[in-house]
Amino acid sequence: MEKVSISKMKFIKSLHLKKHRDEEKLFIIEGLKCVEETKIHSSIYIKDIYISNKEFLETFPESILISNKEMDKISTQKTPSGILAICSTEIQIKTKSKLTLLLDQIRDPGNLGTIIRTAAWFGIDHILCSKDSVDCFNPKVIQSSMGSIFQVKIEYCDLHLIKKNKPIYGAYMNSTPYFTQKIEKECYLLMGGESNGITQELEHLIDYKISIPKIGIGESLNLSVATGILLNYFTLK
Amino acid sequence: MEKVSISKMKFIKSLHLKKHRDEEKLFIIEGLKCVEETKIHSSIYIKDIYISNKEFLETFPESILISNKEMDKISTQKTPSGILAICSTEIQIKTKSKLTLLLDQIRDPGNLGTIIRTAAWFGIDHILCSKDSVDCFNPKVIQSSMGSIFQVKIEYCDLHLIKKNKPIYGAYMNSTPYFTQKIEKECYLLMGGESNGITQELEHLIDYKISIPKIGIGESLNLSVATGILLNYFTLK
Repeated sequence: MEKVSISKMKFIKSLHLKKHRDEEKLFIIEGLKCVEETKIHSSIYIKDIYISNKEFLETFPESILISNKEMDKISTQKTPSGILAICSTEIQIKTKSKLTLLLDQIRDPGNLGTIIRTAAWFGIDHILCSKDSVDCFNPKVIQSSMGSIFQVKIEYCDLHLIKKNKPIYGAYMNSTPYFTQKIEKECYLLMGGESNGITQELEHLIDYKISIPKIGIGESLNLSVATGILLNYFTLK
Repeated sequence: MEKVSISKMKFIKSLHLKKHRDEEKLFIIEGLKCVEETKIHSSIYIKDIYISNKEFLETFPESILISNKEMDKISTQKTPSGILAICSTEIQIKTKSKLTLLLDQIRDPGNLGTIIRTAAWFGIDHILCSKDSVDCFNPKVIQSSMGSIFQVKIEYCDLHLIKKNKPIYGAYMNSTPYFTQKIEKECYLLMGGESNGITQELEHLIDYKISIPKIGIGESLNLSVATGILLNYFTLK
């Protein structure tokens, strides 16, 4: 077992925070499946792999074996899975899907991760998030994306400054039922944040307002569920 | 400010666990919206309301004012909202929807809560969960259901013992695309758990196997998203 220096441990722990991830251009992934998926199926550069479970040594002979106590310190999870890797945030993904997903003020990391996973499933490989959305390298985003984060290009920008070259469909409450709306193959789908929906300053960009009609009761649908229903419809058309 | 006895505090804290919720037939709800919703729109009996934020006293003059420290102790949340209520688990809900949702081995409380919220939105008022599914009075279920838990009848039973009086559609990977399947108005929709899908012992009950085709990549969809897509389709038909 290698003894990992205290400064190295501190360095890894610093990557729990967006500020340091941005500075170092590195982020953490955890769990056997996620690390395997990244190594095999993605073009992501893995800098180091740390394991506290010796069983993983066979699959990752290049990894650094550490103690459970050390893993507890560097892990982002309450119950560490025993394997953690440091990866480069500089991911090269070529996009080809006709639909681009726009996310405005997404705050919940679980939602962003689930939306990335759903987008990948439906063949959407490009997401633009407003700058005030949650960081896609947040450990909870990585976890709930179930490895799909490495297959979808995620960019942060001022959404009201996008160079619009195809129509934008915006999801609103109580507007045109989505299934009565003609959908262009080349388009943007814009989803608003959990609490306030699409911000007003983006409204003038929207060509078609659509919604998922309520049949029963409730104030709203969960954002990942609503995005899933719409992405499914848009990609089936 | 009332001084709440230590034994009372202990009693409330005991309701964080299913065992004690079952014994006492009581559970905890938190957050202004949730408590308001429960008081106004549901038939649920609220036993006590505790607040640590004086602002809420106007809306709930009958509530018991406690200190922030006390709230920290009894709250199920990391950052308590300042209002917590103790409610009876004996909820009377009359069901009338033609579709009944069956959930087999749902383990994630966030998923169950989101599914309940989605079911309510699409007018489904009856869910049967396998006995090994997560407890619907788990604080995380309550939170992610966003108040919808009081509008949907949730029962726990041996799913393979249900008295089947309508066809069962079961969600599987790589089976018939759901949109090519004729859907009966009166039916069951069965969704399997996060890790293993529908357990084998239920397979003989299923009349139609359906799936959400993958267009892009990934191992699976998130369970709440998949349930949302299917519930939307089943209730639109």
